[in-house]
Amino acid sequence: MAYFDAASAVPLHPVARQALLASLDEGWADPSRLYREGRRARMLLDAAREAAAEAVGCRADELVFTSSGTRAVHTGIEGALAGRRRVGRHLIVSSVEHSSVLHMADAHEAGGGTVTQVAVDRTGAAAVESYAGALRPDTALACLQSANHEVGTEQPVAAVAEVCRAAGVPLLVDAAQSLGWGRVEGDWSLLAASAHKWGGPSGVGLLVVRKGVRFAPQGAVDERESGRAAGFENIPAIVAAAASLRAVRAEAAQESVRLRELTARIRARVPEAVPDVEVVGDPERRLPGIITFSCLYVDGETLLHELDRAGFSVSSGSSCTSSTLTPSHVLKAMGVLSEGNVRVSLPPGTAGQDVERFLEVLSGAVAGVREKLGAPVADTVVREDVLVVDSLGKRCPIPVIELAKVIGDVPVGGTVRVLSDDEAARLDIPAWCEMRGQEYVGEEPAERGSAYVVRRLS
Amino acid sequence: MAYFDAASAVPLHPVARQALLASLDEGWADPSRLYREGRRARMLLDAAREAAAEAVGCRADELVFTSSGTRAVHTGIEGALAGRRRVGRHLIVSSVEHSSVLHMADAHEAGGGTVTQVAVDRTGAAAVESYAGALRPDTALACLQSANHEVGTEQPVAAVAEVCRAAGVPLLVDAAQSLGWGRVEGDWSLLAASAHKWGGPSGVGLLVVRKGVRFAPQGAVDERESGRAAGFENIPAIVAAAASLRAVRAEAAQESVRLRELTARIRARVPEAVPDVEVVGDPERRLPGIITFSCLYVDGETLLHELDRAGFSVSSGSSCTSSTLTPSHVLKAMGVLSEGNVRVSLPPGTAGQDVERFLEVLSGAVAGVREKLGAPVADTVVREDVLVVDSLGKRCPIPVIELAKVIGDVPVGGTVRVLSDDEAARLDIPAWCEMRGQEYVGEEPAERGSAYVVRRLS
Repeated sequence: MAYFDAASAVPLHPVARQALLASLDEGWADPSRLYREGRRARMLLDAAREAAAEAVGCRADELVFTSSGTRAVHTGIEGALAGRRRVGRHLIVSSVEHSSVLHMADAHEAGGGTVTQVAVDRTGAAAVESYAGALRPDTALACLQSANHEVGTEQPVAAVAEVCRAAGVPLLVDAAQSLGWGRVEGDWSLLAASAHKWGGPSGVGLLVVRKGVRFAPQGAVDERESGRAAGFENIPAIVAAAASLRAVRAEAAQESVRLRELTARIRARVPEAVPDVEVVGDPERRLPGIITFSCLYVDGETLLHELDRAGFSVSSGSSCTSSTLTPSHVLKAMGVLSEGNVRVSLPPGTAGQDVERFLEVLSGAVAGVREKLGAPVADTVVREDVLVVDSLGKRCPIPVIELAKVIGDVPVGGTVRVLSDDEAARLDIPAWCEMRGQEYVGEEPAERGSAYVVRRLS
Repeated sequence: MAYFDAASAVPLHPVARQALLASLDEGWADPSRLYREGRRARMLLDAAREAAAEAVGCRADELVFTSSGTRAVHTGIEGALAGRRRVGRHLIVSSVEHSSVLHMADAHEAGGGTVTQVAVDRTGAAAVESYAGALRPDTALACLQSANHEVGTEQPVAAVAEVCRAAGVPLLVDAAQSLGWGRVEGDWSLLAASAHKWGGPSGVGLLVVRKGVRFAPQGAVDERESGRAAGFENIPAIVAAAASLRAVRAEAAQESVRLRELTARIRARVPEAVPDVEVVGDPERRLPGIITFSCLYVDGETLLHELDRAGFSVSSGSSCTSSTLTPSHVLKAMGVLSEGNVRVSLPPGTAGQDVERFLEVLSGAVAGVREKLGAPVADTVVREDVLVVDSLGKRCPIPVIELAKVIGDVPVGGTVRVLSDDEAARLDIPAWCEMRGQEYVGEEPAERGSAYVVRRLS
């Protein structure tokens, strides 16, 4: 059994566990109290703040602990927007930010603010020029992740921070995926992160607001954590979070080389082992442990179940997973195939032989799902030069499978119209065309759903 | 050494510790994932929710876990106000609510809402009639604690819930202090609580919203916890919270009798052991473990230090504590003496001999502080019939000490004018008059601060 979903959460680091246990006895009291139990709790909290600040590369009084990374993002964005409300209400985010950032952007828009979503390229990277172009005189805040959580692509944070700084606009960096690997370089203004991504416990996030950044906490506040995180401090978890951050950093240089080699191996071998696969994300500028690919004619949920049965826990940005019927906004923004999507994110310590076993299992698992769904093998009889495929009511990946089955039935130069009301088709039919060297003509409104028109080129 | 500040936080219950340790290994993964680690986490979360709901007396789908009691209160009030925004923007709170409730009320007022603070009597209890009288056609929400956190007085929640229900107004109950002792009776609509008050870990609150209550979560939300608590669930802590709630409930009946006997002993013996003491809070309708008193001519912070040195950790609502220069809003609302205030809140399991030792130590500690501050003993020479005491720039309890020193210097019928710019004087000079049988004439504006006028009656 191998857990390959580190980008979602990793098991508690042994150092975190040890620190948590030790501070359950020492850190349960109210650190604002004057008696010994309170003073002891305060000392632990102060020491954890110093350690975390050192790891981030900021002053201790710039860093507060929140109850989660999501809360750090929400508080950070809200406070920075309010602090610069006089300047304006324009917010810039990339289109591949974590949902916590995009939810805040939605809330900001619902409250009358304006939002620019900066597009990314096919690798998932935002361009510095796009951020520069999005800056306006009324821009209150820009947000950019240090690295993407679904495809691992690193973002040009330092360069974006520079153009923001030149325009007098603070940059908030969501460093959730990268903080365990190292400091975020560049002259950013705010930073958010989450402990359970680096092997710390759940329930701890951190928010850094650089001195000099205008910041106005919103809603009800209290005297705790500089008025930026209301509620009783969770000191045992905070201590464990800080201790494990130091511990993973000590191992980071060596472990990143090792994991990078393992993900490079997956990147190279998956297309050999599995036909009709698109590996996504930047091959070079990326996190060490994440590798993501999409498999044509495969339904993500079924593939995940197959891999789970074979002992591998991975994640998927496909639609057709239990909780959602729309594909990941990240894959959508990148314009890559979303069907049969698999994100492999290796936790530190992953054994090479587990990766080998995964590669062995994968091709069989994909083939099995394709067989069940009746994916096309080869069958070409020319009939007409305009062919309509009715995939209404059918979910991803069926529309693409049906398209692939009939494309050989029209002559070269002929077209196939796929009728579909599945959200994923809008992304996956063009992606299929690109992979297959066919022409994607476009989408037309239909009585129900849309008609996706494809011209056979070969 | 004895920790007597359970109302602030209690050490982790052994059952919580056990449950936390067990679920660190089982509950770290994302419960929304489909693979085995995710399913295991989901099962733990579901079981904890069932257990907590059973303890509260609600349906499992009415209860969400938040990151703290404060967060539960904030989210609950905000969501309930927004859900009934069409009805109006009037909020009712008692004047002795926890600061998390009052901070939300402030934020609501700052945002254009209106707030009625219901007064309490000298025991700290709010009257049902006061709530009934505060209800208006535009009342969106009423809030009332189950019991007060500083003086232990129980509130008439069931009766207030009834008048609110009759008016169609939801009642939110802050049950932080009482949930470990038992269910909150009555037909309330929302309920908030905090695990570290009952021996659970920090970092877990709970929010109950009864079916049928209009509720609109505010700000950025995600799909977790029914959209009412954004951010990755802290499952090990949640499991520990639920397990310890069951455990303390199993011990509650017996332990409440024992603690009630111990606090009754303190209530009876403190006035015998220490001269010039006012015991505050309702002597009958109160939590088992809390007993609060104020000592004339004593500065709270110094007394706390003395008691800490003698091995007792207690809390104080006095001004002159490290973080604040204003007396507790609770004591203020009750109109009782705030100087030299001590809250003793016994955790379950407190030994009788520790209470005995506390009573032995207390009188010496109070006498020591009084001696240091030069509290009055007796010295009466009649000089004039209007005497001015300049206590400007002096902090509590000095103004009262100086008043007490000179009251014998004016003839019966004569007055003393105490000039003071200390916030606590406004509360403590009238309270002193009541304790001493002197007449408090009133407060007059002065060049700096105020003049507090006292007439000698005896």
